[in-house]
Amino acid sequence: MINTTMEMLGKAPSKIREIFEYGNKRKAEVGAENVFDFSIGNPSVPAPASVKEAYLDLLEKENDVYLHGYTSAAGDLKMRTAIAEDLNKRFGTAFRPSNLYITCGAAASLKISITALFTEGDEFITFTPFFPEYRVFVETAGAKLIAVASDPDTFQIDFEKLEAALNASTKALIVNTPNNPSGVVFTEESIVKLAALLEKKEEEYGHPIYIITDEPYRELVYDDGVVVPYMTRYYKDTIVCYSYSKSLSLPGERIGYILVPDEAADAGDLYAAVCGAGRALGYVCAPSLAQHVIERCVGQVSDLSVYKTNRDLLYNSLTEYGFTCVHPDGAFYLFVKAMEEDAAAFCEKAKEFDLLLVPADSFGTPGYVRIAYCVTTEMIQRSLPSFKKLAEAYGK
Amino acid sequence: MINTTMEMLGKAPSKIREIFEYGNKRKAEVGAENVFDFSIGNPSVPAPASVKEAYLDLLEKENDVYLHGYTSAAGDLKMRTAIAEDLNKRFGTAFRPSNLYITCGAAASLKISITALFTEGDEFITFTPFFPEYRVFVETAGAKLIAVASDPDTFQIDFEKLEAALNASTKALIVNTPNNPSGVVFTEESIVKLAALLEKKEEEYGHPIYIITDEPYRELVYDDGVVVPYMTRYYKDTIVCYSYSKSLSLPGERIGYILVPDEAADAGDLYAAVCGAGRALGYVCAPSLAQHVIERCVGQVSDLSVYKTNRDLLYNSLTEYGFTCVHPDGAFYLFVKAMEEDAAAFCEKAKEFDLLLVPADSFGTPGYVRIAYCVTTEMIQRSLPSFKKLAEAYGK
Repeated sequence: MINTTMEMLGKAPSKIREIFEYGNKRKAEVGAENVFDFSIGNPSVPAPASVKEAYLDLLEKENDVYLHGYTSAAGDLKMRTAIAEDLNKRFGTAFRPSNLYITCGAAASLKISITALFTEGDEFITFTPFFPEYRVFVETAGAKLIAVASDPDTFQIDFEKLEAALNASTKALIVNTPNNPSGVVFTEESIVKLAALLEKKEEEYGHPIYIITDEPYRELVYDDGVVVPYMTRYYKDTIVCYSYSKSLSLPGERIGYILVPDEAADAGDLYAAVCGAGRALGYVCAPSLAQHVIERCVGQVSDLSVYKTNRDLLYNSLTEYGFTCVHPDGAFYLFVKAMEEDAAAFCEKAKEFDLLLVPADSFGTPGYVRIAYCVTTEMIQRSLPSFKKLAEAYGK
Repeated sequence: MINTTMEMLGKAPSKIREIFEYGNKRKAEVGAENVFDFSIGNPSVPAPASVKEAYLDLLEKENDVYLHGYTSAAGDLKMRTAIAEDLNKRFGTAFRPSNLYITCGAAASLKISITALFTEGDEFITFTPFFPEYRVFVETAGAKLIAVASDPDTFQIDFEKLEAALNASTKALIVNTPNNPSGVVFTEESIVKLAALLEKKEEEYGHPIYIITDEPYRELVYDDGVVVPYMTRYYKDTIVCYSYSKSLSLPGERIGYILVPDEAADAGDLYAAVCGAGRALGYVCAPSLAQHVIERCVGQVSDLSVYKTNRDLLYNSLTEYGFTCVHPDGAFYLFVKAMEEDAAAFCEKAKEFDLLLVPADSFGTPGYVRIAYCVTTEMIQRSLPSFKKLAEAYGK
């Protein structure tokens, strides 16, 4: 009598949650400083000082009814104006506030976009490894998720495999660069090739194929010369899903947006469908105070230097110990090959050294583990001997 | 190629939005003080001072990563504990934090509850007049909304009509008391009778029939002796959907909850389905800072005395001028019979006197208008001569 799909989703054991519970138990046994928890993708650096200043200033100077009142469903116009101006300055685009629909974060952006696009029989394509909730959002909308394996050495797009997966039922591709969990940034060359392939297929099938670009990690890149191409400049049928969770360290505040460029196929109808999907899914507006804060802090980022330090320390040490790992240009994850076939068994072995890692089977990539380095540098330093012992346990 | 249901929902002309635009234009012509806008249900009284204090204190004393970090998907445990304790104190219940799932407001609560319950062929019943988004939430979940006409004199439940509408496909009733737009509070007698009828029908059909009780106006009642019965005490298969939008004047912050009591049929599975539906619909958690604020302000309410003053002034004046209107015990709306058959035409006539009212056809009650009195008392005073002239135009 209850919706069993929803019931199962609610009951599905979360691997990360299980590891979290184990970590708490283990910390009580051996001391918190001796357990190295790399399981959670929660920003560890604070929001920029300007965020707190914006909150305090708004609360002290503006009246309550304005601060906490409904905004328009698409979002406060001043906030949307600030975002459009910032994007145009950074990427040479010409967006207007009417291209933007403010959301409760990237998950909401994705679910709303998928719901706005969905028609019976649709397929959505993504690339492995991928954030497991993509499957939940797509399948509960009624569509099919096709996971196309990436190049196993670089985690860039395998175009042969992609072309084989594309068909007349393909409604959209979900692209996530920098990638959770691999940290890989798709090269400009890949994006250009992707756009050309999709344009060819659009013509062949006689209908648009959208790219939904999931960009919460856009600003989290650590090397000079690494550029995350702005998708709308390469491919017109793009829907941008953004979140301030990572760039401003505000994951709990649930604030982000959907951008529908004018040049996208059926842009007007699509934007209307985004508004309609937001309404149908119960999103009245994004949190109002957070909208006013973002308006003032648009274009700023948290101090991400700790993540770069962490990445370098962990990547250099682990590869030195014999681990295999693609070099992560962005996000805050290291995606490491398990030293035995079964990643879950490898994570159990890691526990013997009090290292808490996440097996990546649900990311569509069996045989890998995700190591979230959004932790203190000091914890990473203390954990290194354990990683060394783990490698040695596998004869490295 | 786009989802046309969503596109149409996004494009559907909002009557209230149209009136808002007209009001702005008219104010520019004749001066803001000469236009009397009663169209918007946005709280006009500020949040209690304790809300601002909680925001400021949290921002000054707590660290950012805690304040703005993810909470558990079901909501921060301290917040849920505070809510359960407050409910138990006020209603003699025995809820625990595990009965609560924190949401982005009442719309999210309703959509998540409906999605958690929905199986193919389901019907959801509500009573006229009803909040038009019920139809959107139910129909886009795949179910059918049955609107049962209330007693036209009292807007209490018409049990004969309800019994005729109930059948084996009835999954749930959506009950809204105090009611938007009528302001009517269902009497305890009605609730007792409703519970008895549903229990009988549950037995007859051999499956549960849930009551989803939509309660954003619970605290907005204005007379001694008017009690809003706490539904779970009368009927075990109840799901409570609550929002702090009205009681704490925080509509833009999107914060509320779903309560699934232990005694509800399949309570464990149902709570899991609520968690699963929240996940599937893209709700990761409710806004974190607002959760911490609510934890400190649970059980408080804004100063609602202005609404009572407004209700008395408007109700007494309008009935004196010859308008017909059920006495509203709660919420902040007056539900008035149009003085001609077509409520839209009546609202056009009202515009001649610069009164902006909402025709209630979309609430399932043609021939009525909604007057939102969450405005300043002074505006109501200034508007009274216009209401008098409007009545006179109809020969009263």
